[in-house]
Amino acid sequence: MRIYDIIKKKRDGHELSKDEIEFFVDKYSKDEIPDYQASALLMAIYINKMSKQETVYLTDAMMNSGDVIDLSAIDGIKVDKHSTGGVGDKTTIALAPLVAACGAPVAKMSGRGLGHTGGTLDKLEAIPGFSIEMDSDKFIKSVNEHNIAVCGQTATIAVADKKMYALRDVTATVDNISLIAASIMCKKLASGANAILLDVKTGDGAFMKTLDDSFELAKEMVDIGNGMNRETIGLITDMDEPLGFAVGNSLEVIEAIETLKGNGPKDFVHLCETLGAYMLVLAKNVNTFEEGLDKIRTVIKNGEAIEKLKVFIENQGGDNRIVEDYSLLPQASIVEPIKATKSGYISRIEAEEVGISAMMLGAGRETKEDVLDLSAGIILNKKVGDYVNEGDIIATMYLNKEDKLKSAKERFINAYTIVDEKVESKKLVYGVVTKDGIKKF
Amino acid sequence: MRIYDIIKKKRDGHELSKDEIEFFVDKYSKDEIPDYQASALLMAIYINKMSKQETVYLTDAMMNSGDVIDLSAIDGIKVDKHSTGGVGDKTTIALAPLVAACGAPVAKMSGRGLGHTGGTLDKLEAIPGFSIEMDSDKFIKSVNEHNIAVCGQTATIAVADKKMYALRDVTATVDNISLIAASIMCKKLASGANAILLDVKTGDGAFMKTLDDSFELAKEMVDIGNGMNRETIGLITDMDEPLGFAVGNSLEVIEAIETLKGNGPKDFVHLCETLGAYMLVLAKNVNTFEEGLDKIRTVIKNGEAIEKLKVFIENQGGDNRIVEDYSLLPQASIVEPIKATKSGYISRIEAEEVGISAMMLGAGRETKEDVLDLSAGIILNKKVGDYVNEGDIIATMYLNKEDKLKSAKERFINAYTIVDEKVESKKLVYGVVTKDGIKKF
Repeated sequence: MRIYDIIKKKRDGHELSKDEIEFFVDKYSKDEIPDYQASALLMAIYINKMSKQETVYLTDAMMNSGDVIDLSAIDGIKVDKHSTGGVGDKTTIALAPLVAACGAPVAKMSGRGLGHTGGTLDKLEAIPGFSIEMDSDKFIKSVNEHNIAVCGQTATIAVADKKMYALRDVTATVDNISLIAASIMCKKLASGANAILLDVKTGDGAFMKTLDDSFELAKEMVDIGNGMNRETIGLITDMDEPLGFAVGNSLEVIEAIETLKGNGPKDFVHLCETLGAYMLVLAKNVNTFEEGLDKIRTVIKNGEAIEKLKVFIENQGGDNRIVEDYSLLPQASIVEPIKATKSGYISRIEAEEVGISAMMLGAGRETKEDVLDLSAGIILNKKVGDYVNEGDIIATMYLNKEDKLKSAKERFINAYTIVDEKVESKKLVYGVVTKDGIKKF
Repeated sequence: MRIYDIIKKKRDGHELSKDEIEFFVDKYSKDEIPDYQASALLMAIYINKMSKQETVYLTDAMMNSGDVIDLSAIDGIKVDKHSTGGVGDKTTIALAPLVAACGAPVAKMSGRGLGHTGGTLDKLEAIPGFSIEMDSDKFIKSVNEHNIAVCGQTATIAVADKKMYALRDVTATVDNISLIAASIMCKKLASGANAILLDVKTGDGAFMKTLDDSFELAKEMVDIGNGMNRETIGLITDMDEPLGFAVGNSLEVIEAIETLKGNGPKDFVHLCETLGAYMLVLAKNVNTFEEGLDKIRTVIKNGEAIEKLKVFIENQGGDNRIVEDYSLLPQASIVEPIKATKSGYISRIEAEEVGISAMMLGAGRETKEDVLDLSAGIILNKKVGDYVNEGDIIATMYLNKEDKLKSAKERFINAYTIVDEKVESKKLVYGVVTKDGIKKF
């Protein structure tokens, strides 16, 4: 078999076989195929697309290009949740303790953020002493004892994906449904979960900007997961405006804690309840979605969720007094209020622009090497549908370094559209994709 | 300007601007764009194609990526001839003296062969002492004095083309009309000729296998040349069976000499006359094609053509006694007759297979590093349309190393199709493309 012939076949629009896809992924991950041949093939895949079958083969090959984690030593059905990411997405920090408090095991491997805002690991590291590094014995023991552990993804998982993603990133071959789906799913599948819940974000601050693309991506991933015998469900949720009010690492930790205490923002609470209920269903912890919803709400009300968070933090070396005393979290030295420039109803808050503003304050990374300011970020006071008077404080910025404040403010203010007519607030969940098909809400 | 955005634009099927194409060619030839980005762009160009305008920009940028030769010190209109190559194509060796003998200047830069058989330079080097290396002063002086000089293409011509071709060769992006046309034309244009005659081969042994593709390539190149103010004409000629009877370097030199002496094979003589007449028209040496044809036939008959060859060989340091004594050329130690396996009419001789057989005997290079056996090759006795009896000698193989003889013979015999019904011999010239359009014969 020759990579030249594989490139030629895809170039001419033909379907690649399992062997051909495995040959490419295997040889490429071992540096036996040079980048210039891989990028030619990826461009041919991008333009001529891959069939569902090819995408499954690709996912499988990429999964097998690194370690495949065995979680069978953990009792019960392990459900993994994955979000395609967005602005203000602190979901794992609230959701993991919620589901664990309900009695389902949460064994989660997370990544760091590259883009506007930090990833789950960055956010957890805002908690003094919290460590995301643990060996697999400790990981398994933690889940068996406490139903919860979150650790960093090892570098030996889906080796081909890391290499391929870096190449796609510089050759304009990122936003292809098959390549995105395979990249996400190979890591989820290699992480050893029995079932997978996907939170596919849609809108301005999401990877997928349109509802159609989001449903297509969800369908592709759900089909891959189920095709590989892991029950997989995908939700399509809004990321047109930021999620909740907080954007920035320690600010988002606080919002997640408040949510577990029963004081979360309406949209974020709704998202946690919905995702949590589906996770409980997938874990066979409950029989119906409604039963799941009840259980999630109960552990918030009776305090079991917040207690689970404390246990989780302590088990991973963190200072769990932060749950009651937010001053123990990293603090910003500069607090800057942002005022509405006119009166009216907020019809739009461009999530991506809010994310970039937060990044400029220090909350996100522009390059892999950037060091985050975990205290930096933005707290919104108003969301889409709210009425504001000119001069009202619509948000507060938190920062330590003023150098980019002026341009961050400008960008942030421009992210808002304020109109005279009343505006409906945004829908949060647009639909669900299961192995039985697509259901739009 | 960023190469990423240029890749993305072509990926999405948009037309690139002059600046964008120049940016790519310039930066790539200076190693400022890595191969993996260039190959992604080339694949996007391959699949989404280039417009005529983009192809002209590409050719122009590639021409300017290296030295552009100035031939203005040579009197008269310099006409360059280019063949897209094939099996048994010794045309330049006969055509250059023919045209020079008619009084038109021939200032030719040639390349080496990579593929089944040697290129013009390889063939000329079969003549003892012949040198294809000369500085530009000697080159210009030779043409002004003798109307003829053939030298090797300098490495500093169309630098981007060499790099790009090597990359295309390993990423399955070679056979795209725009890329082929730009690659050929940038070198021709950089070589300083005022007018260009293209011999686009068509059929089994050619780069372009179908007549439609061949006309399309010719049209593309003719448009580029004329678009860049060099009068350009393209002929589409047969390469379905080998050209003439001889395949192999010194064997082809002999056939070219015999042609100048008036004893050439019918098809090869026809080709030389046709190309020669068009070259004389382009050089404004004659007013009509028919006048050119007469003149070419005259210099063969009156011996001026063969005399010009002798002067040409001597001027470049070669032993011109070979013209009368072929035993001074490299000689093969083994001579192997090939017999017809059945009786009937020859309906097909696959040129590519004949070329590969000759290569296996040592006449061509499998890799750039291979050293040619200049004496090796094949002399055909019969062509398409001829009748043979079982056991007749249809060809003779010349070689020094027997290691691949058995498989070369097998391949060669399989290249022949012999049938019972009478078969027409092949047409040689299928049409001509000028700035006024396509004329099919």
